[in-house]
Amino acid sequence: MVEKYDIAIIGAGPVGLLLSTCLARWGYKIKHIDMRPEPTPTGRADGIQPRSLDLLRNMGLKRAIMENGPAKVYEVAFWDPRANGSGIHRTGTWASCPEFIDARYPFTTLLHQGLIERVFIADMEKNGVQVQRPWRITDFQNDGADPEYPVEVTISHVEGHETETLRAKYLFSGEGARSFVREKLGVKITHKDPIAFVWGVMDGVVRTDFPDIKMKCTIHSDSGSIMVIPREDNMVRLYIQIASSEDPDWNPRKTATTDDVQAAAKKILSPYYIEWDRVEWYSVYPIGQGIADRYTLDERVFMGGDCCHTHSPKAGQGMNTAFLDAQNLAWKIHHVESGFADRSILKSYESERRLIAENLLNFDSSYAKLFSQRQPSAGEVKNAITDSGENEFVRKFKESCEFTSGYGVAYDPNMFNWSADHPAQHPLFLTESSGQTKLRTGRIFTCATVTRVCDANPVHLEQEIPLNGSYRIYVFAGKYSATKSAIADLAYNLEKPSSFFGAYKRADIDSVSYHERHNPHSHFFTLATIFNAKRQDVEIKEMLPSILVRYWDHVYADDVWDKRVPKAGAAAHAKMGLSEDEGGVVVVRPDGYVGCVVKLVKGSGTVDALNAYFSTFCSKTLGRLLPAAQL
Amino acid sequence: MVEKYDIAIIGAGPVGLLLSTCLARWGYKIKHIDMRPEPTPTGRADGIQPRSLDLLRNMGLKRAIMENGPAKVYEVAFWDPRANGSGIHRTGTWASCPEFIDARYPFTTLLHQGLIERVFIADMEKNGVQVQRPWRITDFQNDGADPEYPVEVTISHVEGHETETLRAKYLFSGEGARSFVREKLGVKITHKDPIAFVWGVMDGVVRTDFPDIKMKCTIHSDSGSIMVIPREDNMVRLYIQIASSEDPDWNPRKTATTDDVQAAAKKILSPYYIEWDRVEWYSVYPIGQGIADRYTLDERVFMGGDCCHTHSPKAGQGMNTAFLDAQNLAWKIHHVESGFADRSILKSYESERRLIAENLLNFDSSYAKLFSQRQPSAGEVKNAITDSGENEFVRKFKESCEFTSGYGVAYDPNMFNWSADHPAQHPLFLTESSGQTKLRTGRIFTCATVTRVCDANPVHLEQEIPLNGSYRIYVFAGKYSATKSAIADLAYNLEKPSSFFGAYKRADIDSVSYHERHNPHSHFFTLATIFNAKRQDVEIKEMLPSILVRYWDHVYADDVWDKRVPKAGAAAHAKMGLSEDEGGVVVVRPDGYVGCVVKLVKGSGTVDALNAYFSTFCSKTLGRLLPAAQL
Repeated sequence: MVEKYDIAIIGAGPVGLLLSTCLARWGYKIKHIDMRPEPTPTGRADGIQPRSLDLLRNMGLKRAIMENGPAKVYEVAFWDPRANGSGIHRTGTWASCPEFIDARYPFTTLLHQGLIERVFIADMEKNGVQVQRPWRITDFQNDGADPEYPVEVTISHVEGHETETLRAKYLFSGEGARSFVREKLGVKITHKDPIAFVWGVMDGVVRTDFPDIKMKCTIHSDSGSIMVIPREDNMVRLYIQIASSEDPDWNPRKTATTDDVQAAAKKILSPYYIEWDRVEWYSVYPIGQGIADRYTLDERVFMGGDCCHTHSPKAGQGMNTAFLDAQNLAWKIHHVESGFADRSILKSYESERRLIAENLLNFDSSYAKLFSQRQPSAGEVKNAITDSGENEFVRKFKESCEFTSGYGVAYDPNMFNWSADHPAQHPLFLTESSGQTKLRTGRIFTCATVTRVCDANPVHLEQEIPLNGSYRIYVFAGKYSATKSAIADLAYNLEKPSSFFGAYKRADIDSVSYHERHNPHSHFFTLATIFNAKRQDVEIKEMLPSILVRYWDHVYADDVWDKRVPKAGAAAHAKMGLSEDEGGVVVVRPDGYVGCVVKLVKGSGTVDALNAYFSTFCSKTLGRLLPAAQL
Repeated sequence: MVEKYDIAIIGAGPVGLLLSTCLARWGYKIKHIDMRPEPTPTGRADGIQPRSLDLLRNMGLKRAIMENGPAKVYEVAFWDPRANGSGIHRTGTWASCPEFIDARYPFTTLLHQGLIERVFIADMEKNGVQVQRPWRITDFQNDGADPEYPVEVTISHVEGHETETLRAKYLFSGEGARSFVREKLGVKITHKDPIAFVWGVMDGVVRTDFPDIKMKCTIHSDSGSIMVIPREDNMVRLYIQIASSEDPDWNPRKTATTDDVQAAAKKILSPYYIEWDRVEWYSVYPIGQGIADRYTLDERVFMGGDCCHTHSPKAGQGMNTAFLDAQNLAWKIHHVESGFADRSILKSYESERRLIAENLLNFDSSYAKLFSQRQPSAGEVKNAITDSGENEFVRKFKESCEFTSGYGVAYDPNMFNWSADHPAQHPLFLTESSGQTKLRTGRIFTCATVTRVCDANPVHLEQEIPLNGSYRIYVFAGKYSATKSAIADLAYNLEKPSSFFGAYKRADIDSVSYHERHNPHSHFFTLATIFNAKRQDVEIKEMLPSILVRYWDHVYADDVWDKRVPKAGAAAHAKMGLSEDEGGVVVVRPDGYVGCVVKLVKGSGTVDALNAYFSTFCSKTLGRLLPAAQL
C-alpha cells in the first residue's frame, strides 16, 4: 500500500516550515522532506520585519525567537563620500519603521535563519511532524488515480539508496530558487529588472571604531558600496556588491575571497578601521529580481517562497514574503479540506501572493533607481516622516517604509476583500472611501490596546485571537445603551442555522470543553466583543447574549488611552474609524487581513450582509436564500 | 582530604537558588543540597511581585519565567455579603499596582514555585552547579580550624547511607521554616502577631460563573472568607481560612479535606456555582507571623527566606522577600571575597534584611486590622490612587500597594545608603530632603526609558546593567555644552590610581576582550553616561573622554517622552530630579538600590565625594588621603 498524506512539503526553509507548522497544528497529516542533513547552520536570510514579528507572535513563537537574542534595528544610517575625498561621513539617519506606520514592533529583528527554522521545527515536533532529511523529490504527477489523493510523489534519500512513493492531496514546493517542481511544471521565471548583481555576504565578529556598526547602514564611498546589518551574538553582516551587469567587465561568475571582501570593506570604511575576530559565514551569489509566471497550475501542486520570487538582499524581503506566502496558503487549504469553503478559493493563493511579489519587485527596482539618482535631503526625510510633504521622493520613501516593514502588503479586492464590486451587495457594508471606517479591506487589521474584561489585563487586540484558521469576527459594541438591541439581534440572527455562523457549527458541539476559548461553536469563527466602556462597567453575563458570553476571554473594554487618537473616548473604536457609540462589526481573515466591515444595526441586516459576504466563497448557501433542503 | 567550597547552600527553594545562581555566575565554588528528591512538583509559593520581576529581568531570567504562561494580576476585586443575605456581591476593584507606583511591570505574576525553581536550576547548571538531592545537613560548626575555610559542614543522604564532610568559607541555610541550622544556632523566632491561623490552599481547574475567577479576589461572606488567585494553565488557587486562634474552639492542628474546602467554597461563592475539573495540589498548614531574632551570629553561617521570616500567605511576600534576602547577601559576600570591601559589610545583611522583614510583618498585621474593621469606600480608594486624599486609610492603602508590589522596600541609612549622618561628608552629596534630587538612598533606582546611542534601541535604563555584582555609576551628563569640562575632570580623576575606580582595576586589564561591555576596567564598577540630547546628536567618540567611550554600549540619549514628566525636555533627568542641563552622578548598589547622588562639577569634587563614600567600606583608603605606600 502507498502511504497517503494530506500534503507533501518539499524544503524546510521558512516557507515550508511555516506551512507545515500551521497545518500540523490544525491536524493534517504531513510528509515533510529537506535535502539538507540539518537546519541552516549559519548565515542566509536573517531579517524579520515588524509585520512578520506580528505573525510570529500570533503563532505563539515570538518569545522563542527573541530568546536567541537577535539584534533589533530601529534606525538606518546613510554614509557618503566626503567632498574632499577624505573618506566617508554620515549624511543622515532615519527610523527603519517611522511613526507614521502604526506598528506594534517598530524594528527589524536580525537573527540567522537556522535559529528561526529551529523554532518552527520544535513546534512541529510537538504536533508529531518531523522533517525527513536528507531527502529530495525525484518525481511527481497529479494523475488523479486516486481522486481524494490525486498527486503521486516520489522522494529519495539524497544518496539514492532509498526511495519512497506516496500519494497526497497537495504537493508544496518550498525548495528555494533551484526548484525541481518548478522545472518539471515548466514554469518560467520572469526577470523584472534586467540588471543582475553578484553579492558577497559575510557574517562575523569585528572590532571597529566605525560608530554605526550596530545600526543598519548604507555606505557609499569612492571605493565602492557596502551594507551593514547588525546580528545576534555581537555579529555584523556586511553585504558588498562584487559585480553588476552594468560593469564594463560584467561576469556573473565573478567571485571574491573573504580576504578580498575584507580588504574592500577596509577601504570603503576609511577613515575608520575594521578588523575581524572571526568570520562565521561567507557566501558569494549572483542575484536577479525574478518572479515565477505561475504559483500553481492545478491548485494541487503549489510553490512559494524563493521558488517563486527572488529579490535583492538589500530589501530584506525574502524570508518575510515566504512567511506570508505560506500563511496565505495554509488557511485556504484548511478551509477547503475541512469543508468550509469552495475549492475555487485556492486560485486566490496565486492571485493574491503573486501580485504582492510583483509589486515588491517593481517597487524595489524603482526605489533603487530613485536613490541611485540622488540622496534625499534631511528636510525631505523629515517631511516624509512628519506627513507634511508630498513630492515624488517623499511618496516613495513612505512606500519604501511600508514595504520594508511588511505593512505595505495590500491585497486587491476579491471574494475575501470586500469592495463596491463585490458580489455581496448590501447597504450596511462600510468602506474607507466613503469615510465610514478607517479600515481598508485587504490590509492588516489595525492594532489597538484594550483591557480584557475577565482578568483586567491590558492586551493587544489584534493578537488576542491566535492563528487558528478561523475568521475573526470583532463586534465593536460601542456604548451598551446605544447598541443593546442591535447586539441582541445580532446574536439572534447568528444563532439561526442558516447563518454563516449557524451553518458551520462544530459536529462535536455538545461535547466541547468548558475551557475551549476560541472555537466553542465553530472551527471557522472566533467572536470577540469590544465595548466602549471602562472595564469595571462591563458585566459580561448581564450585558451580552449567551452566544457572545461563551467567548468570555474575548470580551474587552476599550478604555486604554492611545497617543495616536489622544482625544478619543474609545481609542480602539476611533482607530478603526467606527462610531464610538454605535460600533460596527469587522470581519478579519484568518491571516489578519480585513475582509469586510459592516454596520451594527437592529434587525437582521448586519447578519444578512455577513451571510452575503460569506456566501460568495462558502460551501453552503447562507441566509434567507437557503433552500429548506439544506437546513 | 576534605573538599573545600566557597559556600555550602542548604535548601533549593527560592532563596537558596537565587543565591546560588548569582554566586555561580561570579565564579564561586558551591556545594548546594536539598532534602527533596526533585524541585517542587506543584503548588507552594506562586506570586512574583512587580519588583521581583525587575530583579528576574535584571538576571536575564524573565523570559524563561514568562515562557511558562503565568497569570498576570492587574486588579484586585473585593466581594462582600449582600445586606439581604442573598449571597455575595462585588463592592469594588482596584489596581494591584496603581499608577502612583512607577513600576515597569505593574502586575503580579502567578506561577507555581517549581517552574520558577527550574529556571534557576537551568541557569546554575550552565555555570556548573548542580543541586545534590536528596541530601540534608546533619552538622556544622564554625571551628576556624582552617582560617580560610572556617566552617565544617556534614551532610548526608536523606536515607542515611552516605555522608560527606566539607569545609566552606560560608554556610547558608535556605531550609525553610523548619531549619536545622537555626535550631542548632539556637536562634529564636519571635511571633509578631499573637494571632495564628490554619489555612487550606487548593490549586485546581474549575468551572464557574463567578465573574472574577481570573482576578485576585478577597471574598467575605456570611459563610466564611476566601481568597482567589488565578494561575498558569487555566488554574485557580483558593486560600481558605480553616481556623483562627480567635475562634472559640481554636485548634492549631485542625484540618480539612479537599471535599470540606470545596463545600465551603461553594457556600461562600453562592449565588455563583463552582465545580472542580481537577485539583492539582492541596495543602493545609498552620501559619503565624514570625521573625528570627538573628540572621547570622558570626557572618559565616547565614540564614534567609522562610527560615528567618514567615508570613500570612495573603500578603504574597514569602518568595519575594526570599529573593531579596539572597540578592542582598550575594553581592556582599562577593565584594568581601574578591577583596573589594571590608569584611564588616557582612553585618549589614542582617541589619538591612531583618528590618525589611520586621516592617513587613508590622505592616501586614496593622493593615489587616484596619481592613477587618471596615471596607474602604470607592471614594477613599480613588483618593488614594489619585494622590489627593490623606486620611489614615488612604495612607495605609498606599503603603500596602508599595509593600505588595515590592517597591516599599527601603533600606535605612547606613554605610551604603548615604544620608547627612554618613561618615563621608562632602558638600556635593545631593539629597531628596533638600530637593536636589528625587532619588532616595536605600530605594530602588527610578525606572526610565532612554535611547541607546550605539544602536538606537529604546531601552529601560534601570535594566541596562545586569546583576553583575558591580556598582552602577550613572553619569547623567545633562547638556554637553554645560558639562563638557566637568565630564573631562570626572574622567581625569577617575583615572587616578587613588580613586575608587583606579584602585580596583582588574588584574587582567591588559588582556580584557574588546567585546567586554560591562567590566572592561574593574569588576566592581560599570559606568553609564546619559546625555540630555537627541540620539542623532550624540557622537560618543567626540563627546566623551576615553574612559567613558570604553562603555559605548552604555551611552544613552535622554530623548524619550514620558507621560510621568510630560513637559520635561529630558525625561530621565527629570525623573531622577536632576538638572536637565547640569546632570549629576548617581551611584546605584549592585542590587539596584540607590547608594548616593553627587553633583557633577568641574574639578575633582565629584570624585572626591565618591572616594569618601566608597572609603567607608572599601578595603583600601581612597582619594587624597591615600598614603604613598598603598599606591
